[in-house]
Amino acid sequence: MSHLEQSFSVKFEYKIFFTSSLFDPRNTRLADFFKKQAAVSLRKIYFVIDQGVADAHPELTTNIKRYFEQHREMQLIQDILIVPGGERAKNEPELFDQIVEAVNQYGIDRHSYIAAIGGGAVLDLVGYAAAVSHRGIKHIRIPTTVLSQNDSGIGVKNGINYKGKKNFLGTFAPPNGVFNDDTFLSTLSDRDYRAGISEAIKVALIKDPEFFYWIATQTGALVKRDPETMNYLIKRCAELHLNHIGGDDPFESGSARPLDFGHWAAHKLEQLSNFEVLHGEAVAMGIALDSTYSFLKGMLAETDLQRILKVLIELGYDISNPHIQIKDLQSPILLGLSEFQEHLGGLLSITLLKEIGSGEEVHEMDQSLLIEASTYVYDATQAGAGNIHQH
Amino acid sequence: MSHLEQSFSVKFEYKIFFTSSLFDPRNTRLADFFKKQAAVSLRKIYFVIDQGVADAHPELTTNIKRYFEQHREMQLIQDILIVPGGERAKNEPELFDQIVEAVNQYGIDRHSYIAAIGGGAVLDLVGYAAAVSHRGIKHIRIPTTVLSQNDSGIGVKNGINYKGKKNFLGTFAPPNGVFNDDTFLSTLSDRDYRAGISEAIKVALIKDPEFFYWIATQTGALVKRDPETMNYLIKRCAELHLNHIGGDDPFESGSARPLDFGHWAAHKLEQLSNFEVLHGEAVAMGIALDSTYSFLKGMLAETDLQRILKVLIELGYDISNPHIQIKDLQSPILLGLSEFQEHLGGLLSITLLKEIGSGEEVHEMDQSLLIEASTYVYDATQAGAGNIHQH
Repeated sequence: MSHLEQSFSVKFEYKIFFTSSLFDPRNTRLADFFKKQAAVSLRKIYFVIDQGVADAHPELTTNIKRYFEQHREMQLIQDILIVPGGERAKNEPELFDQIVEAVNQYGIDRHSYIAAIGGGAVLDLVGYAAAVSHRGIKHIRIPTTVLSQNDSGIGVKNGINYKGKKNFLGTFAPPNGVFNDDTFLSTLSDRDYRAGISEAIKVALIKDPEFFYWIATQTGALVKRDPETMNYLIKRCAELHLNHIGGDDPFESGSARPLDFGHWAAHKLEQLSNFEVLHGEAVAMGIALDSTYSFLKGMLAETDLQRILKVLIELGYDISNPHIQIKDLQSPILLGLSEFQEHLGGLLSITLLKEIGSGEEVHEMDQSLLIEASTYVYDATQAGAGNIHQH
Repeated sequence: MSHLEQSFSVKFEYKIFFTSSLFDPRNTRLADFFKKQAAVSLRKIYFVIDQGVADAHPELTTNIKRYFEQHREMQLIQDILIVPGGERAKNEPELFDQIVEAVNQYGIDRHSYIAAIGGGAVLDLVGYAAAVSHRGIKHIRIPTTVLSQNDSGIGVKNGINYKGKKNFLGTFAPPNGVFNDDTFLSTLSDRDYRAGISEAIKVALIKDPEFFYWIATQTGALVKRDPETMNYLIKRCAELHLNHIGGDDPFESGSARPLDFGHWAAHKLEQLSNFEVLHGEAVAMGIALDSTYSFLKGMLAETDLQRILKVLIELGYDISNPHIQIKDLQSPILLGLSEFQEHLGGLLSITLLKEIGSGEEVHEMDQSLLIEASTYVYDATQAGAGNIHQH
């Protein structure tokens, strides 16, 4: 018998703004954004804030209320929700329910907004609740960490965990706007601040050699938390991520995941450490491992590998952490390979390095060689430990 | 300060197949579909079936198992889930949890499939669970009612209810394929069979005069359940819906909803009758009301209105049902207007008729005129009651 064919394209567009003191009433960035949205009536906006951010910025909710008193483009829902940050945000289904309940209670419709202020986990939670409420409420992200400002917060994915399985529930749903406010970075701990740099190293290594060499010259400034250096790093890293997402496969229908360079081990590491190792730290460890594997596999020159390890060590990443060490074929971190394969859906696709700035997809990993790579990284950190203290 | 811009398009494509006895091993339609999907390894398929369908077709699960024994393109998960049909499917959150749990338990990944067999409510439930599990598992719909084969089952929406609020949680997520099997129609009750015809009348009235006039000549054949007549009706109705969805705004970012002609009253009616009035029946009543209102407003000729009412009456729709009658400004059905406005997000947009085959958007409804329209419909059914028994 016969058939009919359906075919259409949906265009997605959004901007990532870089600003300071977003909720200072003199900063019209946010008000201007809402002015440009064609609105048929006064729209509502509902805020969800990461507990850690609320604690570090006790004036934040007051400032938000004052801002919307002066800029009346939107009707602020006065009840601002504070949720725990980090993996807890994604592990507790009641938090998702709380946001959905607020949408119901405050009559937030498809032309109104939910804004999330926080680290990647809180943005993921709020983005998911916004994406499925009324089949998609408008959504604004205000990432507050280096990691979320340069990577997760500017992309198209959201999600929560289910029975401990990471991002088991989620959607691809681009935000309507992202506001990167560097004021939030100033209150991050040194550890959080540095952790997010690894995603910039990652994307530089697979996409942009110049950016990598620039980072290599800036490790001192980054460790000293020079704001201008960090602002450039975040912006360039965000740009490279955006370019990739806007390329062939924004909603990841295929199996290739070049942006997941170093991530198969990182995901497993986070879990093995009970999320004591931060995502960015785990990614740094994963980069060290897979770069070394690339060298041992004969793909990457040893001088390039050494440049990479030097940068990671100078930035203070603990790449010889016991959790990442692979002593034998029973090392639990190796389970990360099959879990990553399951996540991709059948075909294992791992990005390795051919040279600095250029990745290559492979579909199998030699586990004995991974043991060698792990040993190599450990030895290198012992030899290079002196470098860490140079700053 | 500065900003970056993200912009990309995502293409969605799927086919709607029309077939008979889909799970007869000699029917290769489904097997051929899977052969054409580029698969890197053996994919899994998980079935969820509407209780009503399973009851009416006790051989169905056996047939499915036999089919996949003979056609080994997919690895069938032997545990087939049966869920209650109708609004219950969307009202019980545990059913959503059960499907997500199966995805977890059986390791159904993003290149595997969930197939749903049933009426619109079950398809909505399963489509939602598939859309958010792993950010989107591949999904096949096998609609079994007239309504789902010609309208809801072939579109891009899914959803479940939340605290009784219809489709409060859901996404826009096109299926990977739809299989309309006319064998399922033969076991529908007369009531279910006829109910789905109203969506064809609706789309004909706003898009395709010739289709309406054809339906007007076929009321006898439809009441007698002539299969060929119904097959043509479903296919043309599906085609008109697909053309509309594939047009300007597939994911409904604007406020216009021409396909919701007659639906503001229909949604409220279903709720007021505690879902005793079927969706298709409620739509027929809503069409009668809004067509009459269009005439009283001076937009539609009375001869056209009478043609419309005649078709509805000949098909046996109870358009003078007490639930649809608007006696005064306190009639609860009128609340449907503000609820529809909230659903659209601010601006009320109601489609009325200028002539048969042509709709027009209006942004306010005169409630006194709606009372008159209701009275007109009631009187017309009393006068025209004789027609109902002519077949």
